[in-house]
Amino acid sequence: MAEINGSAGLQEVFRGVPPTSPSSQPLVVMEFAVGAKRPAIEWMISRLQMSRAKGGAELDVTAMVMHHKQQTVLYIGGNTERLLVGADMMDLHKRYRDGYYREFSVQDVENFEGSDDLDSFLTMAEKQKVIYHEMEVIRAGDDDAHIPGYDKIKLYPGKSILKKYLSRHIISKVYPLHDEEQLKKLGAEWYQLKHFFKPQPINWIQHYFGEKLALYFAFLGYYTIALIPPAFIGIIYFITSWQSMYREAVFAVFNLIWATIFLEVWKRYCSELTFRWGTVDMVSSRFDEPRANYYGTVGKNPVTGKPEPVYPKYKRSLRFYGVTVPVVGFCLMVAFYVMLGYFYLQEMADELYKKDKSWLNFGVLYVPTAIYAIVIGIVNTIYRSVAKKLNDWENHRLQVSYDNHLIVKLILFDFVNCFISLFYVAFYLQDMTILRSHLAALLITQQVIGQVKEAMVPFVFLRRRKQQVKVMLEKSQALSKVEFFNGEVNEEVRNQANLESEMDEYEGTMDDYLEMFLQFGYVFLFSSAFPLAAVWALLNNVTEIRSDAFKMCRVFRRPFAESAANIGAWQATFELISVIAVMTNCALIAMNPEVKKLLPSDLSAVNIVIVFVAVEHIILAIKVAVAYCIPDTPKWVEIELAKIAYKSKQALQHKRLEAAKTNHKKLQDMISHVTSRAKEEKI
Amino acid sequence: MAEINGSAGLQEVFRGVPPTSPSSQPLVVMEFAVGAKRPAIEWMISRLQMSRAKGGAELDVTAMVMHHKQQTVLYIGGNTERLLVGADMMDLHKRYRDGYYREFSVQDVENFEGSDDLDSFLTMAEKQKVIYHEMEVIRAGDDDAHIPGYDKIKLYPGKSILKKYLSRHIISKVYPLHDEEQLKKLGAEWYQLKHFFKPQPINWIQHYFGEKLALYFAFLGYYTIALIPPAFIGIIYFITSWQSMYREAVFAVFNLIWATIFLEVWKRYCSELTFRWGTVDMVSSRFDEPRANYYGTVGKNPVTGKPEPVYPKYKRSLRFYGVTVPVVGFCLMVAFYVMLGYFYLQEMADELYKKDKSWLNFGVLYVPTAIYAIVIGIVNTIYRSVAKKLNDWENHRLQVSYDNHLIVKLILFDFVNCFISLFYVAFYLQDMTILRSHLAALLITQQVIGQVKEAMVPFVFLRRRKQQVKVMLEKSQALSKVEFFNGEVNEEVRNQANLESEMDEYEGTMDDYLEMFLQFGYVFLFSSAFPLAAVWALLNNVTEIRSDAFKMCRVFRRPFAESAANIGAWQATFELISVIAVMTNCALIAMNPEVKKLLPSDLSAVNIVIVFVAVEHIILAIKVAVAYCIPDTPKWVEIELAKIAYKSKQALQHKRLEAAKTNHKKLQDMISHVTSRAKEEKI
Repeated sequence: MAEINGSAGLQEVFRGVPPTSPSSQPLVVMEFAVGAKRPAIEWMISRLQMSRAKGGAELDVTAMVMHHKQQTVLYIGGNTERLLVGADMMDLHKRYRDGYYREFSVQDVENFEGSDDLDSFLTMAEKQKVIYHEMEVIRAGDDDAHIPGYDKIKLYPGKSILKKYLSRHIISKVYPLHDEEQLKKLGAEWYQLKHFFKPQPINWIQHYFGEKLALYFAFLGYYTIALIPPAFIGIIYFITSWQSMYREAVFAVFNLIWATIFLEVWKRYCSELTFRWGTVDMVSSRFDEPRANYYGTVGKNPVTGKPEPVYPKYKRSLRFYGVTVPVVGFCLMVAFYVMLGYFYLQEMADELYKKDKSWLNFGVLYVPTAIYAIVIGIVNTIYRSVAKKLNDWENHRLQVSYDNHLIVKLILFDFVNCFISLFYVAFYLQDMTILRSHLAALLITQQVIGQVKEAMVPFVFLRRRKQQVKVMLEKSQALSKVEFFNGEVNEEVRNQANLESEMDEYEGTMDDYLEMFLQFGYVFLFSSAFPLAAVWALLNNVTEIRSDAFKMCRVFRRPFAESAANIGAWQATFELISVIAVMTNCALIAMNPEVKKLLPSDLSAVNIVIVFVAVEHIILAIKVAVAYCIPDTPKWVEIELAKIAYKSKQALQHKRLEAAKTNHKKLQDMISHVTSRAKEEKI
Repeated sequence: MAEINGSAGLQEVFRGVPPTSPSSQPLVVMEFAVGAKRPAIEWMISRLQMSRAKGGAELDVTAMVMHHKQQTVLYIGGNTERLLVGADMMDLHKRYRDGYYREFSVQDVENFEGSDDLDSFLTMAEKQKVIYHEMEVIRAGDDDAHIPGYDKIKLYPGKSILKKYLSRHIISKVYPLHDEEQLKKLGAEWYQLKHFFKPQPINWIQHYFGEKLALYFAFLGYYTIALIPPAFIGIIYFITSWQSMYREAVFAVFNLIWATIFLEVWKRYCSELTFRWGTVDMVSSRFDEPRANYYGTVGKNPVTGKPEPVYPKYKRSLRFYGVTVPVVGFCLMVAFYVMLGYFYLQEMADELYKKDKSWLNFGVLYVPTAIYAIVIGIVNTIYRSVAKKLNDWENHRLQVSYDNHLIVKLILFDFVNCFISLFYVAFYLQDMTILRSHLAALLITQQVIGQVKEAMVPFVFLRRRKQQVKVMLEKSQALSKVEFFNGEVNEEVRNQANLESEMDEYEGTMDDYLEMFLQFGYVFLFSSAFPLAAVWALLNNVTEIRSDAFKMCRVFRRPFAESAANIGAWQATFELISVIAVMTNCALIAMNPEVKKLLPSDLSAVNIVIVFVAVEHIILAIKVAVAYCIPDTPKWVEIELAKIAYKSKQALQHKRLEAAKTNHKKLQDMISHVTSRAKEEKI
């Protein structure tokens, strides 16, 4: 191909660019798709290098063209100065000399901790985050009608170029490089067998992977520990005769209160962690920058006055209520009918087997389940892709709002998929035996499949893939003609990048939380029916922590670090489940035929129901009271935050004073008199 | 009495004090009790005049001794300079030249709106508020063991002297003077008959009486308008045949949803009001000054480092859980048993009348109600004083926390007193006829009594009292020997003060809210039983607004203005009632025998209950959804608040930069280079 072989264009792009500074090492790798058109590549490179004032990212780029694969790979870095300016622009929080985290400011750099050595002032994860942010915010200008070389890929002003390249598969991958040395140390502390019962190195995780991921692991670990008491009681009930109504009720009530307490205490723990990481008060607000994928006409932010895309709210509401809600509702109905169909088929199969207990019919017994599993799998895949597309299309301005809408969509579907069948069995069929076996089947199979999918398979594949890559690497180095532009990347880094390029992409914490959410539902929604659920969940999570840790370090490409102040909408969804659990458990116990033996015999059926409704309301009231009585923030964090607020209040007054000083008028005399008195008294 | 006649001491107190400045007019009146001991009076005067640096209030004081009454009255004012400094100290919010409210700062006074004329820069209400605050924070020092002249009235360091004088009745009254001119204008707009259907002049009220009171009237007006739809439906149902089950259910559901909507929309309206008044973000925090009545060992605030009393939290918790909770619980139980006793007596009387329908026995029918009313009256009086004392004794640091704890105590008791009997009739006796008549009786009698007590009586008394005062005034002027120290107060002001001194004291918004709370409960808790309740409530409130307005202007002494960002705990209590109302109404309808006719006939009694429990849960879910969907703040207020937050963020960075500038080090060169680039890019 002429395009690939002619490197004049690429040379042109790098003309006049100062050579990459020695402090700038490649931190992020950008791989173009095989056969991506040269003009598009050249445009991206030029925008990456262009000065910020002209709408570029001003990064150091080294291009590597692999002629044998018709592929271009960019190694991207930035010198210290550039990265510090970028950190300032994106309001990165760093520790100030007074021990508190502040938004980093270049002008004030010497007052931040660790600024003695500016090269290592930002951690590697922070540097990569800055670079990614700078690349993300390269936006199309008024004259950029389409991507060069691709006439049909339209651009409109304000659209993030990188996102467009990614969504149209012109760029296949963008990933930060691992830090092998640190990773080894982190892995040793985190997932090695000898540390199996030690707490996770949460602060290291935050340091290496960012707050969002660290909070996931912190929550997973915390939740696992919180499962110990229910699991302990479950085991005792199992060993002794746990089939007593009374015991079940006690267990259920304990679980319900316990769920509330541990979710509340988690908030406290979470705020301690994020206070230490400086992200505790990182609330999304109207003056945050919009998501890179947010689009709209060019306008300006009503708060800061800075230019940004503007998309009217009514359009988003129209899309949400007009399209998303009906589509999601339809999908939920489909899932519901699939579930009904399953139970109908199962009943037919059961009857067939009852009539004629042949081997053939025994086999037929499992056909409905198999069909159900397959259909649900298909529906699930379709739904997830639809949900994702709808969510993109709703065009949320802030990442938090985007995430929360996606979480709700996924949760609704999984709720119908996984829990509605349980509700159906428990409250329509009212068959406790089926409920117990169905619940156990769902919980245990999902866990086993999860473990296999998440831990075993990647582990095996990883070994095989490492082999493959090695062979491929040797082959390609022999055959290929690799050409570098603007500097060269040493072989070690190239090999590392080659290896990491072949790793799986980490899709974010969404699926991991979803898994935890479902498990939480299985354990708490029907505690009284299956007390052993907590034991299974505990066993699963103990290994899950370590296998997830291993995956993060060895299976997935390194993700870009993301900040977070808390676990976001997941907190609310877990709390919601704990409220629904009160209703389900009370209903389950009320439906138990044994219950009449325990209550006074002169109570009518109606009164029994009323008693249980009253109990349900009382437990809900206790939950509210417990949630109210446990403050969301520990006292020391609250005081520290108040100190910061107080300082900022004083600073505001100080600034006003400064402004006033330059603006003297006729009141001069009066003021100076009063001022001196005020000072005298303030001391 | 030698003490009173010898004025040498008083003359001594005023020696060396500069004469009252012409700009300082008397704004606040402090009356000592008749026969209060001279040393105590002298000490108070000297502390009021002493400089702030020495622990005084530095106010202008003119003393008037009425020898015939053995009474001393102080007329207190402050010159403009003093009041501005005071406003600065107490973080009063004033409108800045950019249109936003800021904490007032003397050093920056010229940038606040209206600072051209400093004498009228603060409103009269603000000046009085400042003076009261300054008087309140005069605290006992280490050497002040007791009040001079009263060896037995001990003081301890940090205790507010004024509060001690008031609680020990050495000072009988402290009140700000009315502004007759403004009051006339305000009254004309507010309570005159021709403005009966016009909205209240809320902004004027805020200007004259402060935010807390203005919010009460705003809420009362808003709530009254919100009663129109339920009242309208109630009337229609009454005119046509409203006794249909179906209609009752529709009405109840409408009411429940409506209550949620209007309470949510109120929050929006409230935040608009308080945004305009500059108090919207006035959140209590750890760096607020403690209440004047807060006491403890001398320590310092953990946030600001300023000295303040410190009282350990465990002690407060000990008092709360160890004493308050049991005592309140006991009182509630007493009220409950009194209620049971009433029903027991009533039943006996009913039977007696049934057996022998004599005139005597007809009279006996009303004996239980009479006894009940008297006993409840006594119990209520005792409880209120106990609740108040307990609340003082719990020693809350912030006024908000003090108010909220008092509100909860009062509400609990009134709930038991007024609502439990209805619950008893509705769900234990299950007699809808008694419920309806009992509800109507409670609602209407309370309203009639309320109107008489609040509007008629004060009005009649006011006229009589004015006469009395006039006669007394003339008499006293003839007889008395009035002596002035440190200036003189003209007769007009003296007469005004004499008149206002005889007016009733306004006890705060607590009782008014409580009344509204009970009415809200009567209307919404049992809507399905008595749809006309809303009509009665509406009629009552329309007159209540105007009679309350009249009382504020003409019956009560002017209260000191208080700031508020919202209606505080009342919002939560109204919301709580609206949640309980869902339960009661669902239960009421489910209990209706007609309900079976409407539902499919094959539904068992148990299933009917389950259906209604389901309906209840669905309505609760809708309530939560509605509350979630209506944002608490209108968009424009949100954006304005974000702008303020953004500015303050920038100011903080600015201050850091200032600090950094004075602190250059070895990184000088690097920084200056980076700085210039950052500036270039930020533009």
